[in-house]
Amino acid sequence: MKYCSNCGSSNLTFQIPEGDNMKRYYCNDCHEIFYTNPNMVVGALCIRDNKILLAKRDIQPRKGLWTLPAGFLENAETLQEGALRETFEETKSKAKIKTQYTMFSLPHINQIHFFYIADLLDDNYGPTSESIEVKLFDPSDIPWDEIAFPTVYKTLKYYLADLETGSFEFKEEDIKL
Amino acid sequence: MKYCSNCGSSNLTFQIPEGDNMKRYYCNDCHEIFYTNPNMVVGALCIRDNKILLAKRDIQPRKGLWTLPAGFLENAETLQEGALRETFEETKSKAKIKTQYTMFSLPHINQIHFFYIADLLDDNYGPTSESIEVKLFDPSDIPWDEIAFPTVYKTLKYYLADLETGSFEFKEEDIKL
Repeated sequence: MKYCSNCGSSNLTFQIPEGDNMKRYYCNDCHEIFYTNPNMVVGALCIRDNKILLAKRDIQPRKGLWTLPAGFLENAETLQEGALRETFEETKSKAKIKTQYTMFSLPHINQIHFFYIADLLDDNYGPTSESIEVKLFDPSDIPWDEIAFPTVYKTLKYYLADLETGSFEFKEEDIKL
Repeated sequence: MKYCSNCGSSNLTFQIPEGDNMKRYYCNDCHEIFYTNPNMVVGALCIRDNKILLAKRDIQPRKGLWTLPAGFLENAETLQEGALRETFEETKSKAKIKTQYTMFSLPHINQIHFFYIADLLDDNYGPTSESIEVKLFDPSDIPWDEIAFPTVYKTLKYYLADLETGSFEFKEEDIKL
């Protein structure tokens, strides 16, 4: 932040405001305090005929690697709406949420990742502007060496382990670097 | 947003950037796009001797009403760290997380609220700069007409219902206005 978005001043400092305990950008001219907070990423592990829907990313970061559909939660939407929107944007498919599944804190990048398990509603899916290929994978065929993000990798690993027991309990994990 | 925080220009528009599908603040001079996303609020329902810890707010909003300790998740912290930090800031108490309990989407205010169930570690608790009074309530004595926030009210109601069954499963709910 180089200029105050409220008054245009460049007289900004990064300091602990009175009564606070964390540094914030502060405008010494108009006295506005600017807060930044973690973002949520929401996604879905979508199932059809016991297979898992993955999308090969056609955008950065991790272009060319496989992911579960997921992305930043937007203003004015619920978590489930966000997960289903991202699923459609990245795989052109429609799904129905089954259960909350994994939640990860990633404090080094100020993100929370949240994945649902969902059922694909039909066999309509395919590439989009964000994904060069979209494919249903048998659990035994998951391309483990080409998974885009650690939280996707972990969610898939949890799911395969849970397939053995049939119990898909909600899981929380911290990933710290 | 009145001025670009990157270059100081007032030549901003609120428009859908190329390749996007939502309106963002966009600087027509330096071409920076500004994203805003929902914030997470994390808190804890803390138990000691079967009683529930509530704090009477000494700050706005809802000053004078009772709440579970909760507040905005900060950058560089995990969800559990945030919940325990807020618990300490608002009740001067230390607690141990037991389980994930409730999660609410509030799309009309761009917030996600997340509450844990936790055990107080000892009998040390008390007022802070944010809370004029901190008290353990027997479930039968909860001041239902003086609860500060709907998600606190609902979390308490869920907890009392679950006390009957002894099963405290994770719950997700949307609150839309």
